[in-house]
Parts: sequence; structure tokens; C-alpha cells
Amino acid sequence: MKGYYKLDEWNIIEEVFSAEHHEASESIFSIGNGAFGQRANFEEKYSGETLRGSYVGGVYYPDKTRVGWWKNGYPEYFAKVLNAPNWIGINLWVANQEVDFFTCKVSAFRQELNMQKGFLFRTAEVTLPDGKKIKLESTRFCSLVDTEIGFIKYNVTPLNFSGELSFEPYVDADVENKDSNYDEKFWDEVSRTVHPKRGLVTAKTKKTEFVVTTGMEFWIENNNQEITISPIELETEKFISNKFNITAQKDQTYSLYKAGTYVSSFNHDEEKLEEIAFNNLELAKSKGFETMLNQQAAAWAKRWEFGDIKIEGDLAAQQAIRYNIFQLHQTYTGDDARLNIGPKGFTGEKYGGSTYWDTEAYCFQFYLSTAGERVAEQLLKYRHNQLQKAIENAQKLGFKNGAALYPMVTMNGEECHNEWEITFEEIHRNGAIAYAIYNYTNYTQKTEYLFNYGLDVLTGISRFWAQRVNWSEAKQKYVMLGVTGPNEYENNVNNNWYTNYIATWTLRYSVESFAKLKAENPVKYTEKLKELNLTEEEFTQWQKVVDNIYLPEDKNLGVFLQQEGFLDKELIPVSQLDPAERPLNQTWSWDRILRSCYIKQGDVLQGLYFFEHEFDKETIRKNFDFYEPLTVHESSLSPCVHSITATYLGKNQQAYEFYLRTARLDLDDYNKEVHEGLHITSMAGTWLSIVEGFGGMRIKDNTISLDPVIPGHWKSFSFNVLFRSHTLKINVTEKGIYVTNHCNESLDIQLKSNLISLGAEETKFIPS
Amino acid sequence: MKGYYKLDEWNIIEEVFSAEHHEASESIFSIGNGAFGQRANFEEKYSGETLRGSYVGGVYYPDKTRVGWWKNGYPEYFAKVLNAPNWIGINLWVANQEVDFFTCKVSAFRQELNMQKGFLFRTAEVTLPDGKKIKLESTRFCSLVDTEIGFIKYNVTPLNFSGELSFEPYVDADVENKDSNYDEKFWDEVSRTVHPKRGLVTAKTKKTEFVVTTGMEFWIENNNQEITISPIELETEKFISNKFNITAQKDQTYSLYKAGTYVSSFNHDEEKLEEIAFNNLELAKSKGFETMLNQQAAAWAKRWEFGDIKIEGDLAAQQAIRYNIFQLHQTYTGDDARLNIGPKGFTGEKYGGSTYWDTEAYCFQFYLSTAGERVAEQLLKYRHNQLQKAIENAQKLGFKNGAALYPMVTMNGEECHNEWEITFEEIHRNGAIAYAIYNYTNYTQKTEYLFNYGLDVLTGISRFWAQRVNWSEAKQKYVMLGVTGPNEYENNVNNNWYTNYIATWTLRYSVESFAKLKAENPVKYTEKLKELNLTEEEFTQWQKVVDNIYLPEDKNLGVFLQQEGFLDKELIPVSQLDPAERPLNQTWSWDRILRSCYIKQGDVLQGLYFFEHEFDKETIRKNFDFYEPLTVHESSLSPCVHSITATYLGKNQQAYEFYLRTARLDLDDYNKEVHEGLHITSMAGTWLSIVEGFGGMRIKDNTISLDPVIPGHWKSFSFNVLFRSHTLKINVTEKGIYVTNHCNESLDIQLKSNLISLGAEETKFIPS
Repeated sequence: MKGYYKLDEWNIIEEVFSAEHHEASESIFSIGNGAFGQRANFEEKYSGETLRGSYVGGVYYPDKTRVGWWKNGYPEYFAKVLNAPNWIGINLWVANQEVDFFTCKVSAFRQELNMQKGFLFRTAEVTLPDGKKIKLESTRFCSLVDTEIGFIKYNVTPLNFSGELSFEPYVDADVENKDSNYDEKFWDEVSRTVHPKRGLVTAKTKKTEFVVTTGMEFWIENNNQEITISPIELETEKFISNKFNITAQKDQTYSLYKAGTYVSSFNHDEEKLEEIAFNNLELAKSKGFETMLNQQAAAWAKRWEFGDIKIEGDLAAQQAIRYNIFQLHQTYTGDDARLNIGPKGFTGEKYGGSTYWDTEAYCFQFYLSTAGERVAEQLLKYRHNQLQKAIENAQKLGFKNGAALYPMVTMNGEECHNEWEITFEEIHRNGAIAYAIYNYTNYTQKTEYLFNYGLDVLTGISRFWAQRVNWSEAKQKYVMLGVTGPNEYENNVNNNWYTNYIATWTLRYSVESFAKLKAENPVKYTEKLKELNLTEEEFTQWQKVVDNIYLPEDKNLGVFLQQEGFLDKELIPVSQLDPAERPLNQTWSWDRILRSCYIKQGDVLQGLYFFEHEFDKETIRKNFDFYEPLTVHESSLSPCVHSITATYLGKNQQAYEFYLRTARLDLDDYNKEVHEGLHITSMAGTWLSIVEGFGGMRIKDNTISLDPVIPGHWKSFSFNVLFRSHTLKINVTEKGIYVTNHCNESLDIQLKSNLISLGAEETKFIPS
Repeated sequence: MKGYYKLDEWNIIEEVFSAEHHEASESIFSIGNGAFGQRANFEEKYSGETLRGSYVGGVYYPDKTRVGWWKNGYPEYFAKVLNAPNWIGINLWVANQEVDFFTCKVSAFRQELNMQKGFLFRTAEVTLPDGKKIKLESTRFCSLVDTEIGFIKYNVTPLNFSGELSFEPYVDADVENKDSNYDEKFWDEVSRTVHPKRGLVTAKTKKTEFVVTTGMEFWIENNNQEITISPIELETEKFISNKFNITAQKDQTYSLYKAGTYVSSFNHDEEKLEEIAFNNLELAKSKGFETMLNQQAAAWAKRWEFGDIKIEGDLAAQQAIRYNIFQLHQTYTGDDARLNIGPKGFTGEKYGGSTYWDTEAYCFQFYLSTAGERVAEQLLKYRHNQLQKAIENAQKLGFKNGAALYPMVTMNGEECHNEWEITFEEIHRNGAIAYAIYNYTNYTQKTEYLFNYGLDVLTGISRFWAQRVNWSEAKQKYVMLGVTGPNEYENNVNNNWYTNYIATWTLRYSVESFAKLKAENPVKYTEKLKELNLTEEEFTQWQKVVDNIYLPEDKNLGVFLQQEGFLDKELIPVSQLDPAERPLNQTWSWDRILRSCYIKQGDVLQGLYFFEHEFDKETIRKNFDFYEPLTVHESSLSPCVHSITATYLGKNQQAYEFYLRTARLDLDDYNKEVHEGLHITSMAGTWLSIVEGFGGMRIKDNTISLDPVIPGHWKSFSFNVLFRSHTLKINVTEKGIYVTNHCNESLDIQLKSNLISLGAEETKFIPS
């Protein structure tokens, strides 16, 4: 699909209508506001292949798939991201002929996602079977300011006739999930109300009993004058609409304004939902479309002011990084500590649940550096709030004494995924959650979160690791058996280097953090130990595991072993694979993948990325040179980490190639699956590739350091990072680097090999 | 449940009616004839917990369980054993009160499974709400002679009144599976016909489109005189019945005779099913119940003549072994090479599919020695007939050049199970299929099957093994990565000793067998090579794998390692486990089981059982002493093999304990799951425990050898084996051993350390 969308700095543009690409474009042009979001479905009927999808944050369905061989300890359910009621729908008829892009002739089509201002625009000329032709223009957004409201301006202009247009704006809760078993529907109606130009449907999800009121308010204007209409009120179960006709004049534009709202029991008392929905619709109508669109643009301008990355000399790269940043901000705003960053955000239904280790391993740094400490804290609090459920989850698996295993996938803290090799064994996720606490503390140098909350989480996780290892008499070492590492193309392996490393790193960091608290605040330290029922003997045991862990390596090759026995595999580089067999997960059986040497995403290399500061460059290079050629990068999360490490190792061309694979993964549909939704969490990896990769940003010895290189044919690139009280602007050009410290305090930064002092609001230029 | 059923030589007896035990008894008293079978459901209504189940051989449903994480290469479906239309039903009312054991008062209850004659008998006195009391007697069998016919004699005697009895014999195809997803039903009606005293329902299974006509024919007698009745013909979708009343006299017995038939498109043209069904019903009526019951008893007598095992001094053991033999013969008769031995036979729905490696590993020897070579050949042919599908199955997994992987579970040769760790990795099953060919050839010394058909199967399997190993540079050996051994409490392990051993044994046996053919018949040898597109270079490669396979062992301990890394586990014997945590699969999470040392069923020890002749006794003893204490025997297939090896090692008390666990597994419901159906395939293991265990039967150097010991407090035991043209009767007493050679040819047998020559029809006594 490369080249299908037009390159542009600030917009994603589709210039022809293609039924074949329709579902992909529905994903690509998705809009959202952190509270809800929707695929870029057309407002009017579309009878071709489509995935109609609207999604409301926090609302899910606990699906049970009954299979005969359930394993003991499996979770109760598998969380489905639920397709929510649709408020965007507007059926349209021209002289009783229904407008349907799949069956009508469509010309002059253009669809644009305006990332600068945060709206979706579509225009087209549509010829009906009898030859009548109209121009259609739709502008739609999900408000970042009033987060329960969305708005549509839907313009219709007869081009070659005067005559009757019929409209039917509606709210439809009779929706289904694409992946539902046996076409089951998940919403039951609670009530519905239809008035002229207004209506609500209140529906409740089965099992989880989330109640959502979905409302609409509309009116129609011509020449900025509201037209008087007499709509027929229609209703069936879970559905309300208004239907009305107008007599339209040739070349006159008729604007149907439709505000929509979602009001959910996730946020409000169930009894008040309808009242609040009406208030929201009133608010939308009183503000009006243009005012709300301006507020939307202003809200986006603020996000871009700190969060933008500019690239000169590479329009594809420029567009892509903005697209990635835009989608991340559409998905998560940090306003609600109960929400998180689903792998598909509000753009599709694949993968259940909203929270994966992706959040801590890939997204956390992005929000910390571009949305600020408060948003990052919300992400940390999300896990702290779910600590008790993580402890219960570990108990189900036989762990004791407050050991915590965070779920692989969750909506509310409960595990909701059930492949044993993932659910029970991909336990390294626990390490990433601990790492985010370290990352935040190291970045901010604030210990308040760590001492008040972080230690609780670190203790639960450390207790898990200390119980999960066992002493091997044969090796005279602690070993960790039966795990799945980040490379999910291996299951149930022994002594995965990454897992063993991050486990003992957690134990080390926990012991150090408690020691720090003891030194800084002995009273609080004693209180914390009491609160957590911890003794210093437990620290001794943790340290014993740290000191005696088995970390597989091959000294001759100078590499760590992904797991025991890795060198028994046939080690044939990916470059020698038949391209027709790629991606392997679409052509090879699972056992063949498992016993092959091929790596889905970095495993040892993920560890060397996280813990770069604990290894010398030569070690990292040897491991990169050994493992990268065996890596198929069939996870969207793979290329970014490799891009960063490649830059670190001076492999700039390779780093740039990895960057493009991550940045334009969805826009160019590398994995041929964008129609199912976007890869939201991996988009943060794109940002990391630029800021930590090409920008070389690290926090070392309490100082921010930069080591920029300009990749490929770029002329320059610039990015901002929020660092403590400072907003740093970094502009990397061929001639040199400009660094600006927007702050009323000075800051020392490490720039390549120089320590530079930047005064308040000072810019410095360091020539290449 | 120990002691619930009364001990008896030839019968299984239940002396009280217990709603709590009802589902278990429905399993225990199951009857069948190899072509169809049924649980011991009551004929009349039963409103308590019940699993109504009738099953027709070869008829299945390909269920799809949609889960989001399907692995590439998975089979199309998961085969469900289908609950078939019910012909046994007879609703009964006494003065308009429905007879229902769950709600009525039941006394003088007795249920008997007559194993000698092959029928099910039930009697009870039932008191209706108004105080009326009847005696009920039901006798039912599935005919071994006319295998599409079953028969019921249903006696009702008013005990304290004269008055109206109403009967409604019916055929019901509106049945469902207990484990169906979302209560889906699997049968659609094709047609139905109802006449006075006769009726048919023809129904078709969804997806697989098996058509089955189920018919009934009935009449009612008093004092051997048919009573004239005027039944009302009733029908609804998938259901037909007759309803009629009689005025019954106190103390008079009214016998409703009901014949049933299943006629299936599995055996006949679809168009002829109804005609054949009517013919069957005519046949049943003309033969009559008593004649058919006598024929049934005669057919069973013939089976017992050769297949019985007599035990003196241990009634529990005597009853149990007969029960096991009886159920095996009810499940599989060898009449149809398309059928096989389902793990639950015709007694339940759990586990999909009909054929597992259980057939070759546990059942084959039983049928070979008690039902004869022809039946054993049918089992071999079953696999030969499915060779092409096994080759296709291997192709789906990426294997080439005619490599064959037989399915883990199948109905018709296609794989129909989908857990990757089983489907793709429990490949040792291929070895058991090769072993059965060896076993048959070694036992019979006939090479015809081997040379004509067996070599085809051996070649497919050998090609699989040769491709499934890979060369390890690190070890300088061939290794086999990513397998699941017989101990399913380990998944995806490397170098499972059992799998590596049986794989290279297969390669060895194939090479030897081809060499033997070459020596005996060079022309045929050349033809076979051509037919199979084989070259001698391929043999060289196979031999290279044999010579260079990696077989993990620990020389210090003197044991083979179940798999690489086994000694990294915590090795705590089962005896130290908390009994409250047993069985582990009901209390431990899967990952905990996987990383523990606990063994579900023999793995290394299964190999040492199969290949006992290739190891010295001391090696077997060391491995037994190492692994058995770590074995939880949570597979029904586990105790029998351990019983045999324990006897071999002189651990007689332990052997006897294992024997009881296998023999009375269902009768005493050791695993608390008999309500789901019987463990049919493991029943063959009980036979093995006696014949190969206590009897010590082996085939060595072309001679049958025996090495009997009397276990526990038995006084004597005797068994027969069909060996080539001989029927050997072996009676082991405290005083000595009687061996009889029923044959017109003499035979040399090895009895303990003596080679004994037995003339035709000669009995010899060898004192202890």
C-alpha cells in the first residue's frame, strides 16, 4: 500500500475512493480524544466491506470461549474491546435513491486527516443511478475539550438538479463485534427517547453492565440559516432516528450539523446519564460547530507546541512521525488513571484488553517527555491501583506472601488473556512495570512517588521473582524455568536471559530503593516495612538470588543466550529465508517457528536497550551482530528498539531503515493488516527512535545527555522534551545543534562529549 | 465411590437408587456393540442430573471454537463425538402421573450389567404421588449379532391397584451435546414417519452431513399375548412417538417390547436408509426379544471363551478385569476398519475424536492376543488407509517428500485437535504407530503385512523423523527440539529421551525391514523403493541420524533424562506433596505443573516398557527408582505400565497396587470423573498388567515366554492368549503353572527359565 496516501507535512490525504482500501482507510483516518474514538466510517450507508467501529474508553465485554482443555488458573474471561453504539450515522437519499459510495459513482473524492487541528474531512461528488449528482462534504471531530462530545458538519450540495433530499440522522446501539462468537450481540437496551432533532439510546453491556447513553442533536442550515423541518420520529429496539425531507436548490449547500455524545456509567451515576447527555447536547448546540472546532484546533496546537517533531528533507518521515504522535495523543491523555493505552486504541477490536507491557516498555517515555510528569504519574498510578489484583492473580498461580504478577492483558487489573504460554509464562512484563518506576524516578529525580507508592509495587514484583526462581542443584545457581520472553516465537523456555536479568535487576533496584529510603527517612522506612510486612531478611534473600542467578551466555561467541539451548538450533540468517515465506507467522506452523532460531522482536536486545548503561559497547555490538540477523521483526514493537541500538552502535543506515519500518508501519501497511486497526503502542517506539535513537537522549548521572546524528538524507530534525522544569528544544542540523532551555532556571546538559551549561531561556549552538 | 457397586464375578450391581450417583451409573452401566452404544439412561423421563447419551460409530461433528489467537497450521476443526438420536425412550404415566425416578419414591431398586451375556437389567418399585405403586423391569441390549439393532423389554406391573397405564415410546433426534457451545444443536431433520407402533426419524448432522435413520418398533404383551392397542401418532420436528393407554390389572405384568435401529449413511446409500431401517425392525420383530437375547449371550460366550481372565481369591480384581474386557469388546469389534477405539468409547462426549495413540500403545496388544490377528490387522489398516492424510498433515507443518505425521486425535485421518503443544509437538505418537507394526510382525512372524503395507507407513514416519531432527553444531549431534513427550505435564521441551529414542528406533526398524525385504524378495524390494520414491541414500541418512542422535542422560545417577534440563527442577518426591493438592491438575496452575518435576504418566518409563529388551534390568531399575517417585499418575494410562515394569523388577506389592488403580479406576471412580464417561483405552492397560505384568508374557527370539507371579492375596489366575495358530491357556496357581496348547500343532514356550515343548492340545504342569 506504499504511496497510497499522499505525502504531506500535516495531513493524511487520500485522493481517490477505493472500495478495496476502504477498511484500511477507516483505520488510518480514525479519530479519538482519549475518552472515546471511532474508525473513519462514512456517515451515510456503505454496503461494501466495512468495519463500523466506535469505542468508549473503559467499556469492555468479558467473553468466554468455551474450549475443552481449559488450564487450571486461567482467568474467568477474555476481555473484548466492545464496539459501542454509533452516533455518527446519517442516511441520505436523493430523490429516494440512497447514497452509498459502494454502489454510486464517486468522483472528486478526497479524505483528509488534519493532524494539526484534529479533525477528519471528506469530500466527494456522488452520482445517483438516475444521474443526479451531489457534492458531499463531511467534517468531524471528537472534542479534546468536551470529551463526551463529538461533532459533524455534513454538507450536501445538488450539482445538477433541484429536488428532494431525505436525511435520517440516527443513533444505533444494535451493533456487533466483528469477532463475536456466533454473532452474539453485547448490548441490551435500557431505554430510548426520540424527539424532533434529538434522541437518546441508553444501552447496557451484557455481563459487565456498563450503561452508556448515546445521544444526538442535529439541525440543518442553508446560508447559515436554520431550515424549519418536520422530522418523523422513528424508533426500533436499540435504535432511534429522525427522518425528514428538504427541497434543495441546485448549487445551494445544505449543512446538517450533528452533535453526538457518549455518557457512561464508567464516569457518572447511572440515573443521571440521560440528563447529562441532554446537557451535553445543549452545550454542543449552544457553542456551535465552529466554536468547538476552533477550541479543538487550539487544544491540538498546545499539544504540538511541546510534542512536535520537525524533520526537514524527508516528507515521508515528517508525516509519519506526526501521525504517530497524533494517534498517541488521540488514544491517551492522562486525564483518567483508570484508562490506558490499548494496542489498537480506538481504531479496532483485535486483541482484547487495554493494557499490555507495551505501556511501560514503549509508551511511558513518550508521555513522560512530551505530556509531562503528571501524565506519566497517572500511568504509574494505574498499576499501583491494580496492585491488589496483581497479588490475587499471583495467588491463583500458587504464589504467596504478597507476591504480585501483573496481568499480560487487562481492563481493570484482572488478567483477561488465556494462552498458557503467555498468561502464565510471559512474566517479564512484571519487570517492565518495575522499570517504569525506575525510569520515572531517574528522569525526574523525584523520590516521592517511589517512596510512597513505587516501593509497594516493587515489593510485590520482587516477591514474585524471589518465589519464581528455584535452586538448581545441578547448576548450583538459581534458575527460572518455563517462561516466555519478549520474543514470543519461543514458548516455555528455561533461563531466558532477558527475564532472568530484569528479574534480578528488579530485586537489586528494590533493595537499593529501600536502602535509599532508610538513609533519607528512617522513620518512613520502618513504617513502610511494617505496612508491607517486610523484613530485612527478605532483602537478604532477594540479594542472594541476585548474587546467584544463572544468566546463560556463550563465552566463545561473546553473547548472552536468549535461553538455554539456543545454540542447538540451526542458525541461518533471516536474509537466507525465502521471501515468499515471510512473514513466517503467516506461512509456518507454530512448532516450526518455535524450534527455529527466528526472533519475533528483540529479546536479549530488549534487555541491552533497557540496561545499556550496565554493559560495554562491545558486548552490545556482539549481541546485536549475533541476534539482529536472526530477527524477523514480526512484532510492530521490534524495529524501534533495533533502530535505537543501531544508532548507538553507529550503524546509521540500518537505524534509518528500522525507523522507516516503525514510523510508516500503518501508513504503508507493512504487515498487511491495517484494516484491523492501527498499531498504537508501537507508535511510541517511533518517537523513541528519533529522540533516543537519532537524538541519543539518555539520562545519566542525573544529567540529560544528547548525542545526535542526522539520519539518511534528512537536512535537519528538531524535537522537544519536557525535562523536570525545563522544556528543551533540540534542533539538529547539518551545521550543528541548537539547544534551547525554555525555563527560568539554568540547566547543564551533556551534548556529545561536552558538558554545556544553558542559562534560563538560553539557546546555544554547537557546530558539528 | 469405592464399594458403591456390589462385588460379583460376572455382574456390576447397584442396589440402591441414588440421584447423586446417577450420572456415574449411567457411565458404568453403558452398553454397546462396536457399531453404536449408549449410556445407561433410564427409558422413562428422568428430571434429575443426567447425561443422556447415545453414540453411533463414525458420526462426528467438526466444531470450530473461534479464539483470537489461532496458530498457523491448526486443523480446520475440533471433532466432537456427537450425541445421537435416542431410540430408547419410553415415557410412562400411571393414572396421569408421570414416572420419574427423581421425583417418585423408588424402592427395591437394582441395576445389573450382565457381562457374561451382554445386557443391562434394571428393576425397581415406584410409588406415584397418589400412592399407586408399580414394579418396573427393564432389560436392554445392543446386539452384537445384528449390529444395527437394539432391544428393550420393559415390564410394568401394578402392585397395589388396577387402572390406567399410559405409554409413549418415542424416537428423539432433538438431542444436544453437553459440551456444545451456546447450546447449539447438531442435527437437522431430513424426514420423519410415524405409524402405529412404528416410526422413523431421519436426521442429518450439520457440516459433516452424516444421515442417520433412527427407528423404533414396539408392541405390548400380557401373559405372552400381544395386547391390541390404538396408539395416537404424535410428531414434532425431529421427534415421533406413539401414545397409548391400557387398563392394567393388579399384579399382572405388561411387557412393552421396543426394538430400535440406527441405519447410517456411514454404511449405506442415503436413499436406502429408511428401507433398511424398516427391514431391521421387521427382523427384530420376527426374531423376537428372547431369540435375540439368546444370540447375544451366545456371541458373548464366544468372546469370553478366548478372552476371559479368571482370578481366584480376589473378587474385586476378578470383577474389574472382566469389566475392563467387557467394555473393550463393546467398543471395538474389528468389523470395520474405519472405526477405532475412542477414549470414552460410546459412554460419553469428553475428548473429541475417536483415535489416539492409546490404540497402538495400549489397546493393540489386547486385541491381537484376545480377538486375533484379523482384528489387529484392521487396526493396522486403519492407519495405512489414513497414510495419505498423515502425509498431508505433515505437509501443512512444512514437511516434505512424503513425510507423514499421524494426527494426535482423529475421526477420519485428519487432525482434529488444537492445542499447539499437543497437535504440533506430541509427535511421539508417530513412533507408537510404527511400534504396532513391529509388535504385530514380531508376534505373528508374518511379514506379509509389513512388506505390503507396513513399509509404506514406516517410510512416511521415518521421513518425518529424519526431517524433524536437526544437527546441533554445539552438541555435534542430532537433536529434536520443541516436543511434548508422553508426560503431558511438560510441553515444548528439547530432546525428550522417549521421543528421540522411539524416533531413532523407527528409523532403525525401517532400515532393517527394508534390508529383510531385500534379502527375501529383491524384486519386490526394488518395486517398493520405486513405489515410495525411495533410494538407498535415504536409508544412509536415516542411519546417520540413528548413529548420531542425542539421548540425554546423567551418568552419575545412571538415568536417562526425560528431557534436557530436567535436573534443574526441584526434585521432591510425590509422597511429600500435600494430599489436599492432589490431583495437581485440579489445584495447580499449568505453569506450576510445567516447571515442577511431576510426571503425569510414564515417559522415560514408557520407553523402557516398549524397549525393555534393549536395556539391562539394572538400568530399568535405576530409572524406575528415579522417576516413579516423581510420577503422579494423573493419566488413566499411567498405572498399567508401571505395574508391568514393577512386576518385571520384582516389586510385586507395588505392581499389585498399580494394578488395582488401573483395574477399578472407573468402578471405584478414583479420578472423580466417571460421570463423564469411562476410560476405555486405559482398560486395555489392565489386561496388559495381568498378561504382561503378572503373567510376564513376552515375545523373545520368536518364542512366547512367560514368567508368572501371583500378586497379592490371589489364589490363582488364568488367562488365554491367541498366539499364531495356538490358543494358549495359562493357569497360574500357588502350586504351579498349567499351560495348555489348544492347537493341532506343537509349540515351544519359554516358561520362566525353562524351554517347554507343548504338543497339540497338551497341558503341562510346572510346579512352583
